[in-house]
Amino acid sequence: MDLLARAQQLEQSGASIVHMEVGEPDFPTPKKMIDAAKKTLTEGQVKYTAAAGMLPLREKIAEHYLQQYQLEISPQRIFITPGASGAFLIAMALLVDRDDEVLLPDPCYPCNRNFIHLFAGTPKLIAVDGTTDYQLTADLLQQHWNEKACGTIIASPSNPTGTIISARQLQSVIDWVTNKNGWVLSDEIYHGLVYGADVSSALEFSDDALVINSFSKYFGMTGWRLGWLVVPEALVEAAEKLAQNLFISAPTIAQVAAIHAFDADNLQLLENRRQQFHARRDFLYDALLSLGFTIQSKPQGAFYIYASCEQFSDDSDKFASDLLEKAGVAVTPGRDFGEHQAHTHIRFAYTTSLENLQLGVERIARFISR
Amino acid sequence: MDLLARAQQLEQSGASIVHMEVGEPDFPTPKKMIDAAKKTLTEGQVKYTAAAGMLPLREKIAEHYLQQYQLEISPQRIFITPGASGAFLIAMALLVDRDDEVLLPDPCYPCNRNFIHLFAGTPKLIAVDGTTDYQLTADLLQQHWNEKACGTIIASPSNPTGTIISARQLQSVIDWVTNKNGWVLSDEIYHGLVYGADVSSALEFSDDALVINSFSKYFGMTGWRLGWLVVPEALVEAAEKLAQNLFISAPTIAQVAAIHAFDADNLQLLENRRQQFHARRDFLYDALLSLGFTIQSKPQGAFYIYASCEQFSDDSDKFASDLLEKAGVAVTPGRDFGEHQAHTHIRFAYTTSLENLQLGVERIARFISR
Repeated sequence: MDLLARAQQLEQSGASIVHMEVGEPDFPTPKKMIDAAKKTLTEGQVKYTAAAGMLPLREKIAEHYLQQYQLEISPQRIFITPGASGAFLIAMALLVDRDDEVLLPDPCYPCNRNFIHLFAGTPKLIAVDGTTDYQLTADLLQQHWNEKACGTIIASPSNPTGTIISARQLQSVIDWVTNKNGWVLSDEIYHGLVYGADVSSALEFSDDALVINSFSKYFGMTGWRLGWLVVPEALVEAAEKLAQNLFISAPTIAQVAAIHAFDADNLQLLENRRQQFHARRDFLYDALLSLGFTIQSKPQGAFYIYASCEQFSDDSDKFASDLLEKAGVAVTPGRDFGEHQAHTHIRFAYTTSLENLQLGVERIARFISR
Repeated sequence: MDLLARAQQLEQSGASIVHMEVGEPDFPTPKKMIDAAKKTLTEGQVKYTAAAGMLPLREKIAEHYLQQYQLEISPQRIFITPGASGAFLIAMALLVDRDDEVLLPDPCYPCNRNFIHLFAGTPKLIAVDGTTDYQLTADLLQQHWNEKACGTIIASPSNPTGTIISARQLQSVIDWVTNKNGWVLSDEIYHGLVYGADVSSALEFSDDALVINSFSKYFGMTGWRLGWLVVPEALVEAAEKLAQNLFISAPTIAQVAAIHAFDADNLQLLENRRQQFHARRDFLYDALLSLGFTIQSKPQGAFYIYASCEQFSDDSDKFASDLLEKAGVAVTPGRDFGEHQAHTHIRFAYTTSLENLQLGVERIARFISR
């Protein structure tokens, strides 16, 4: 966040910055959803909804699971939340008791650790690298599981690495944890943003998995703050109580808009955006390799590339800071995501146009050839 | 919540229900704010804001403290949150460590207790009644404070009692707790909805108090999910990190709309609504006394009356259920708010028109005279 503030400061003083640090799609919210929001503002009232969310939206999401994954998920198991953040909050409140250990890959999205701390649990970071596509495996879990361990969080596609857990690996992780009477929470907020690969939902392998998803990334609704959580049948009642207590209900206007997220013409527009992300990924991946960065596992989703800058620096904090100050390119240093290999890695986000990415790559090329 | 579900069920099967259980104003969001939201949907983008909220909105709130309370509060101390719920979440994360005891009046808003539990703290309920306007006093705190106690939550006007803590009493509570190195969290979400009385902000007596407020009740923005939290200077940095981790940012459209909440013409409209609430309070208070209900302390704010039904029943659960099933009037039984005198009390909400309130009172009169 310091780097983000510094980038803004430089921009305000007139510098040109290429933003490759932003975890937010550059595309606006699709018009279909904007129009639905405006319609409800004109015609309707903006009152609390049911704590679990508007039933028509929960039904649309259930239909999405059928279309996309051939899964029958009862709308009763689907909770509409204020962003994926609200879904994490309920999930952690359901799953983590004090002193519980939760196994996480390192690197991973930093808020996950903080949610565990919030409930007096202990995040146990397990070093991962390209050999397992930066994902946990049953073997790794076996090495690190102990009597305090209660569950694990999978994120696929992953932030910061953009890597996907294969169906086989996902199944073996779920089977292993289930066998230990542990839980699996699957962060699927980048589903939809996948390039030339298949991505599986944890729900394909277990009705007991909890799944978090979001309207922010694929559907382009970041500022609306809307996500969802799928819980097992047995946790529906507890989740409903938590939703009521922790946030009353998710934002109403966002819920009304999101009902149109799955309309055929909207999905067509999102597919077009996905193809643009795909082209950006292809460009940036090749360009970074040409420049001499190392990428241990080719990212196949989200909008991130996690690359080693070892050839140029063994201090990624300083490298990121230099890139910003001397080359006008903002990236995120590895230490934001964990400890393992953090000092040699940086995260590039391709949430900006191909033209900007080209400009960014040129600037990096000039900087490292000095 | 069971009662709410049953009331809806009865309505769907054709029954006429007078709703005096709803904690949500019946007025729509003011047009000024609706228009601002539509404008930003047409012209702007709905992206994440800064974690602490949009600066222009934080500045408006700071100005509000100056106008309303003659207090200079730096916008840096003001955090925009997803509803007052988001403010509670940050406040509890800042203030409650495991096994800490938090002193609360009984009755009080039930979610407060649950937020404390969430952080492995212990809510310690202190029985209050009309003799202290259902508010805690320094004397009561002295009786119940022990080495595990860390702070107290004040709510004025209170839900469910509608009572206000006097300036003198508030000052003495704050002084007493401060002297014990404890913290005071002041829930001021019903400020503005006050009838023939003055209400003070905890910030008038201490820069170290934390204050929660909301755009839901007075400003009529329930479904938008927007509130705010004022923290002491020393907690600004920690609050910012928590906001970033726990919810990223509050809903953007709601923030843009709320910037217009304090416009002079909008405040005039809200003053008119306040007068309507005042008239409803006057009507319902007198009517309930005439019917034989006992009200220990005349409510002077919010939109609730907490009344004893002892003359008719010593089981307020059953009385509320009978009122719903046999008289078509929905109210909330006391046990939703605590234990003390709960079985003889019910909460009436006047979040419906005077005509509906009259109809409700007629139905109750018929029911109790049977």
